[in-house]
Amino acid sequence: MNDDTIGIGCDWGTSNLRFYRLGNSGQIIERRQFSAGVSSIKDNKFEAFFTKAIQDWLDNYPNIPVIVSGMAGSRQGWKETSYLPCPANIEKIVNKLTPIKLNYGRTIWIAPGLSYTNYQGLHDVMRGEEVQILGALSIIDRKKKLICLPGSHSKWATVAAGHVLEFHTFITGELFEAIKAGTIIGSMIDPNAWNDDAFIQGIESVGTSKNILNQLFTVRTKGLFNQLTSTTAGAFLSGLLIGYELAGALAGTRFKKIYLIGDGQLTTLYQKALLHKGIEPQVFAPDIIASGHFKIIKIINQDV
Amino acid sequence: MNDDTIGIGCDWGTSNLRFYRLGNSGQIIERRQFSAGVSSIKDNKFEAFFTKAIQDWLDNYPNIPVIVSGMAGSRQGWKETSYLPCPANIEKIVNKLTPIKLNYGRTIWIAPGLSYTNYQGLHDVMRGEEVQILGALSIIDRKKKLICLPGSHSKWATVAAGHVLEFHTFITGELFEAIKAGTIIGSMIDPNAWNDDAFIQGIESVGTSKNILNQLFTVRTKGLFNQLTSTTAGAFLSGLLIGYELAGALAGTRFKKIYLIGDGQLTTLYQKALLHKGIEPQVFAPDIIASGHFKIIKIINQDV
Repeated sequence: MNDDTIGIGCDWGTSNLRFYRLGNSGQIIERRQFSAGVSSIKDNKFEAFFTKAIQDWLDNYPNIPVIVSGMAGSRQGWKETSYLPCPANIEKIVNKLTPIKLNYGRTIWIAPGLSYTNYQGLHDVMRGEEVQILGALSIIDRKKKLICLPGSHSKWATVAAGHVLEFHTFITGELFEAIKAGTIIGSMIDPNAWNDDAFIQGIESVGTSKNILNQLFTVRTKGLFNQLTSTTAGAFLSGLLIGYELAGALAGTRFKKIYLIGDGQLTTLYQKALLHKGIEPQVFAPDIIASGHFKIIKIINQDV
Repeated sequence: MNDDTIGIGCDWGTSNLRFYRLGNSGQIIERRQFSAGVSSIKDNKFEAFFTKAIQDWLDNYPNIPVIVSGMAGSRQGWKETSYLPCPANIEKIVNKLTPIKLNYGRTIWIAPGLSYTNYQGLHDVMRGEEVQILGALSIIDRKKKLICLPGSHSKWATVAAGHVLEFHTFITGELFEAIKAGTIIGSMIDPNAWNDDAFIQGIESVGTSKNILNQLFTVRTKGLFNQLTSTTAGAFLSGLLIGYELAGALAGTRFKKIYLIGDGQLTTLYQKALLHKGIEPQVFAPDIIASGHFKIIKIINQDV
């Protein structure tokens, strides 16, 4: 083919599968997306689904690198790859790429996840977000920064000089859903209602009580004392939990700007929460991951 | 009847209904229990269920006081009674008793719940536990103490000189169940397994990470790194949450002894957790509530 396609990036997460055909300046020439996360692939048929989804690309560009990131490298995924300990950078990630030889002979590469072990020996892990972070690192400067990736498991990564130094996962989103589904607080909430003021009130209420297990009960008492209704309780709870996450993630830091990678309503909430705390959020769309794939592809191509 | 029955106490909670026929030294002459909590009574048929359950007592003792505590006084209960603000003591509770005139003419009394409002205006509430605390206060001395009532919503009350000064609710137990039912951590857990060592490890791990939303994710990573299995993950999570509750409830206090009101496995866990922290637990069984009813009955009888 007479175009400048130099590689293929693939982000195979728990619930989505995304492909990027990348040009020689890193531009996305073509993008494909499937609601076919790792958890939806039965009988280990990863290769069949993968090759069918981009058969034409594989045929048309027989010699370009293909990089797969995300849960495809997990125990429940296509091929388990180990975690690369932090601090980690692009070179270490490239050195840990795991080859998969497809049935018809072509080799593709699965990226490792990252792990971080704190001074007390507790581990944290990510898979996929590290390539999004690599993408963001090609845009932001090399000073120490804090990057947040909102999600049902939010990740907060400290980066500097092209390295991911450490990161922490907060299960805020998943806990919010579990509280809605399974507690007396959840029974107060109209799931279709939202109220921005109540969200901000939730953020502001963080730390006004003994601890979060106690504070969650105040959502209930605010209902009893008519300070929350079914239309405001959900937003208040969301603000309380995201605010509590921010209190943990920002403790001891003095960043005036935080980089967010994400889109949709959840990322908008993190923007609002940060702005309310006087911190400027700068948002990258999730497709920033293609810039991470591009950086990996460039190194591989130079090595050839 | 030729016996010393001087009153009837009733504790009508969310899931259970308990009656105590009390003698003139406070002893329980007869006890009845029904799995008929407030939430199980349909069409507001509280009076019918109540009178049928103790018809013989009501007939045999036509002139003794009957005191009902617990969720019977809630909005979803028999008759809503207001909350009595802390600090509160036995006299204030007696002054706030709400009469219900039964169909055939007899008057019984519903006890108020307690509320506590912290300096930032956040409310906390209890219904029923205050009479258990009254019961305990007839045994322990009048110095400042901390009383914990384990439950799906644990209550921690500071008492002194016969008063409940303040209290705080922690939704630890309900959150534990919601996490088990609705999160990736829950999917790791064998609900029939238990391991005491893992419970203690959970207590010890409190505070080793950024905050509880982050720390909950370490349960997941401990699974990934083979530090927890399906048979230990549930006990570890329980230890983590109860330990986190204790950290909040005991913050800034120096009690060497804590009074627990409760029974069963949950209270045993709180005992273990306190002992592990070098604090002596002293346990009262939930029937201590009958001593609280007795104190109320004695005051009413003196007033006659």
